[in-house]
Amino acid sequence: MKTVDPSRTSAAQARGAVLEELIHRDPGRFRVLTGDRPTGRLHLGHYFGTLGNRVRLQNLGVEMFVIIADYQVLTDRDVADDLTGHVEELVLDYLAAGLDPARSTIFAHSAIPALNQLMLPFLSLVSVAELNRNPTVKDEIAHSRQSAVSGLMFTYPVHQAADILFCKANLVPVGQDQLPHLELTRTVARRFNDRYGNGTALFPQPDALLSSAPLVLGTDGVKMSKSRGNAITLAASADETARLVKGAKTDGERHIAYDPVARPEVSSLLLLAALCQNRTPEQVAADVGGAGAAALKKTVTDAVNGYLAPIRARRAEYGKDRAYLRRVLREGNERASAVAEATLAQVRTAMNSHY
Amino acid sequence: MKTVDPSRTSAAQARGAVLEELIHRDPGRFRVLTGDRPTGRLHLGHYFGTLGNRVRLQNLGVEMFVIIADYQVLTDRDVADDLTGHVEELVLDYLAAGLDPARSTIFAHSAIPALNQLMLPFLSLVSVAELNRNPTVKDEIAHSRQSAVSGLMFTYPVHQAADILFCKANLVPVGQDQLPHLELTRTVARRFNDRYGNGTALFPQPDALLSSAPLVLGTDGVKMSKSRGNAITLAASADETARLVKGAKTDGERHIAYDPVARPEVSSLLLLAALCQNRTPEQVAADVGGAGAAALKKTVTDAVNGYLAPIRARRAEYGKDRAYLRRVLREGNERASAVAEATLAQVRTAMNSHY
Repeated sequence: MKTVDPSRTSAAQARGAVLEELIHRDPGRFRVLTGDRPTGRLHLGHYFGTLGNRVRLQNLGVEMFVIIADYQVLTDRDVADDLTGHVEELVLDYLAAGLDPARSTIFAHSAIPALNQLMLPFLSLVSVAELNRNPTVKDEIAHSRQSAVSGLMFTYPVHQAADILFCKANLVPVGQDQLPHLELTRTVARRFNDRYGNGTALFPQPDALLSSAPLVLGTDGVKMSKSRGNAITLAASADETARLVKGAKTDGERHIAYDPVARPEVSSLLLLAALCQNRTPEQVAADVGGAGAAALKKTVTDAVNGYLAPIRARRAEYGKDRAYLRRVLREGNERASAVAEATLAQVRTAMNSHY
Repeated sequence: MKTVDPSRTSAAQARGAVLEELIHRDPGRFRVLTGDRPTGRLHLGHYFGTLGNRVRLQNLGVEMFVIIADYQVLTDRDVADDLTGHVEELVLDYLAAGLDPARSTIFAHSAIPALNQLMLPFLSLVSVAELNRNPTVKDEIAHSRQSAVSGLMFTYPVHQAADILFCKANLVPVGQDQLPHLELTRTVARRFNDRYGNGTALFPQPDALLSSAPLVLGTDGVKMSKSRGNAITLAASADETARLVKGAKTDGERHIAYDPVARPEVSSLLLLAALCQNRTPEQVAADVGGAGAAALKKTVTDAVNGYLAPIRARRAEYGKDRAYLRRVLREGNERASAVAEATLAQVRTAMNSHY
């Protein structure tokens, strides 16, 4: 288990409500950094967990930088062998979900040298002891042989600081387990400003926008994940979706009710239908009532397929034009590079290394 | 003490003789990466230890890349406050000593983002355990509080791999204590080629060119270093040199003889004069004979000032034109950037991340 300080979590939650109000009042004040590892097609867990929220923020007028974290999949041999394909599929999912490349900068980590260079000054601001204390790294060390932890994994929180600070993002949507990483980013920003800022804050200390999304489980009642085969992807067809839902785990009780603790599988299906229909799970349960698991599954299938229909139509349309996908990425890379180079130039000036 | 495997040292020494012969036969086969941290003016210890050898290799026709390792002085507050000045002084020392910017590429580490990006794939090829085993890092940890070791110091051998491999240097002049670092660079090159090379070797496994230079001691009989005030810098005037040598430690024996073990201070002075006059220390000692320490010091002063006169004249001349120094560095940065970008493009293609 990752160790997360509960007081930090509740502070972040309280701050979240304030941030939402500020975003609605003046979205132009905010720049968000968010992104994904290109490990495969996105599913409804991603959509209702983060992707939908990004589209919402974008449409409110918040400036978005979306990083495709391709350097974080190097040790995943299956992905690394077809990295280009995985990256294009991710861009396709983004566009299908509603990210608009004119308003959101979609770029690949490995395409922005000036961003990556920030690693070096940032590494000088962080001690080995601090890196060892990072809960995610600790976790990784505990769950693997120590010798298997790569230098890349060990320094990961510092890359993340570079990913966030290169574009001076002041808002980062995160899950609870990422709060310690963001804390390190804030530390790096603060230390850089203190040491090199000459009284000015070159870097913001970004706020966490803690996800309030309920966890969408897979069709087997545990966390949705590609490798478990329990995930409904955005790209799946209506028939594939029907098949997956049909095979979903339920329980022996005929009467359908929302009770996440006692009946996790049924409740997860109710939640999924509810999210797709913008209703509460209790409302969905009341409609199904005594009609049983088969009726519930039909409701869920229809809800999901209805909700995803326009997303899937866009996905199919964009998918015909791979050249367009590559152009979106290329233009995003160019925009992110320009931002990274401007920041690096400021960093060089601040550090007296502009020669 | 740094732990250096003696068998590795003697293998490198044997290899050194072979390499020297190959260099003389076909200098165009070799590309050297070498450099310095910009911590202050270079002194005779640097000159006879490394700088003179670089000029020699350049003049034989070996291609030289000379890195000014400005990211390695970030924790030295005195240097960091006037980094630009320190870097310019270093360029001045290089030009004065005979490095020719038309044949040797002089560049600053912080100015080459594509070089720095190589850190990330290279970090994925090295484990934390391997980084912990590095003798220089171990040394640092043993001699400081563990918490004081920065992420930058900890990952230093991987930066060095990027510094060497970005230009595909196949020859690196090193002292014994740097052999383990170079071994890690060779490991990174080998692993990268194995994992991503598709049967070709994108990176060479660079050879160590082990320094055969005798150690030049300072005027107090211990290692020459700026902070001890025992160093004769290239930039020092003839009078300053005379004053430094006059204050040098000697011993009570009137008869001057070369005996590094029993008479280290006198022998170091003899060695210095000998290096400047291209003679043996024994020859210098025979000339001074019974004339004593004062005569020895006069011989040393004359030898050093004679040897350094043309270097100092060039230094004074170049020093008048700071714009030229900056241009040398700017053009070197541009050349190194072009090389780094070409290598990074190859790396991207090899890793399937060229989108």
